[in-house]
Amino acid sequence: MREGIQNTLRAFAAEFDGRLDALLACGGPRPADLAEAVRYSVLASGKRVRPYLLVRCCELVGGTRERAWPAAAAIECVHAFSLVHDDLPAMDDDDLRRGRATTHKKFGEALAILAGDALLTLSFELIARMADARVVQALVSELAGATGWSGMIGGQAQDLAGENQPPSLERTRAIHRLKTGRLFAAACRMGAICGGGTVDQLEGFLRFGGRLGEAFQIADDLLDLTAGAERLGKTAGKDAAARKQTYPACVGAAASRAAADAAVTSAVAELAPFGPAADDLRELAAYVVVRDY
Amino acid sequence: MREGIQNTLRAFAAEFDGRLDALLACGGPRPADLAEAVRYSVLASGKRVRPYLLVRCCELVGGTRERAWPAAAAIECVHAFSLVHDDLPAMDDDDLRRGRATTHKKFGEALAILAGDALLTLSFELIARMADARVVQALVSELAGATGWSGMIGGQAQDLAGENQPPSLERTRAIHRLKTGRLFAAACRMGAICGGGTVDQLEGFLRFGGRLGEAFQIADDLLDLTAGAERLGKTAGKDAAARKQTYPACVGAAASRAAADAAVTSAVAELAPFGPAADDLRELAAYVVVRDY
Repeated sequence: MREGIQNTLRAFAAEFDGRLDALLACGGPRPADLAEAVRYSVLASGKRVRPYLLVRCCELVGGTRERAWPAAAAIECVHAFSLVHDDLPAMDDDDLRRGRATTHKKFGEALAILAGDALLTLSFELIARMADARVVQALVSELAGATGWSGMIGGQAQDLAGENQPPSLERTRAIHRLKTGRLFAAACRMGAICGGGTVDQLEGFLRFGGRLGEAFQIADDLLDLTAGAERLGKTAGKDAAARKQTYPACVGAAASRAAADAAVTSAVAELAPFGPAADDLRELAAYVVVRDY
Repeated sequence: MREGIQNTLRAFAAEFDGRLDALLACGGPRPADLAEAVRYSVLASGKRVRPYLLVRCCELVGGTRERAWPAAAAIECVHAFSLVHDDLPAMDDDDLRRGRATTHKKFGEALAILAGDALLTLSFELIARMADARVVQALVSELAGATGWSGMIGGQAQDLAGENQPPSLERTRAIHRLKTGRLFAAACRMGAICGGGTVDQLEGFLRFGGRLGEAFQIADDLLDLTAGAERLGKTAGKDAAARKQTYPACVGAAASRAAADAAVTSAVAELAPFGPAADDLRELAAYVVVRDY
């Protein structure tokens, strides 16, 4: 089963990267160095979990994947923006990401800040190019809400504020929810919006994505604790060094693993209405907590 | 005449800030320190030239100012975002802005980066909350295009790349067009979109805003050369110190003044179809090149 979803994700990533590349080529002229930093930050690496969720949730509610590509590209641009800015020296100060130099290490800080800004802006530009104005409005609203000061960006602010504070499970869960859960949920809901999903389906995906994001982030905390930099593709052991709020720091490794499993179980329960058509998402949910990179 | 438009702008800024304050209060909960940094960056200072252009262009094409407030707030959020990030140590490294400590000086670099990110995201969230989906789509498209890697952010990248290069008028004009002209033009066009303007009106505002932005930026270059920090509200003489591409560095102060005047003249010519109703914008155009702050 685990190999199945890994192969599925790999095949999807190849298809997605081709679409993303083509979408990035549209639009007006842009400075060559900035374009290179943007492309470096978003292309040719990454598991593409958020775009996969988006495209598959579109299909699950009866839409075609063709309709979902611009929104899938948009959510990956937002994710890439967040990685570029979070890695900056003033933030988490990371030299390594996805096994390569971080954007600011390769292009310098100024261009990294601008590349992040450009990716965030581009995500809304990609959505605005879609055909249906009502879909565009719903997608912009969903994405901006999940990204902004009440969402992912707010989560990063809380993450930084939580450094050097005593571990608190409540605080950790709030940070996870904002930093990871909101964008996972937005990915699922944006897919459903592209595919014309019902209000009930959108609410189910809010819960599914939120719980899946939680499982994903607990697994990330555990990986930071146990994996080497080679497997991780980023600097390992950073959380403890920065005295970050993490799940293991609050409840230990064993209880963290149990919490991740519980989050997967309750995420998967939300997929019941879709029957066997959602089996790949069930596999994905099981996979995020056992992945070793 | 000059006092007239200054009073008009002051009265408008007071009205606008009230609206902006109310719009910022909407939405979900957010971390207190991030919210404070965002509000510090966008409220209680600034001439509000871009929102003024937006609201007045809405009225000129027959719309009510009520319809324009969210878009006016959005464009000021984008402007504020650009100031916060441009002031960062890795970029223009400024300690003073609008007579106060820059955001990173007051809140630290990490929170300044996040506040800029939050302001940029918020601009699209504000637009998405508007009633008419087709207007939302057109506004997001206009704002993202003017802001992104082919617009203002691309201009900042070129500005940084141009430092320490020999002065080039062609390069300077391209940077001015992207860094300032695009957002001025977008302000006018977004106003026209809110007010239901025609394609001809939108094209006229593209030229008007672009030329006005050019005049504004040349005047800014001249001010940096001649004014003290007290009047300027920001560190003076920075352009020459950073060996920036500026108009005076390329053609001298006298020819720069002539170029600014020429840009005003050709901007004002675009207002002919509106007759006396656009007199305030004519005054504004004349004012931007003689302001002494």
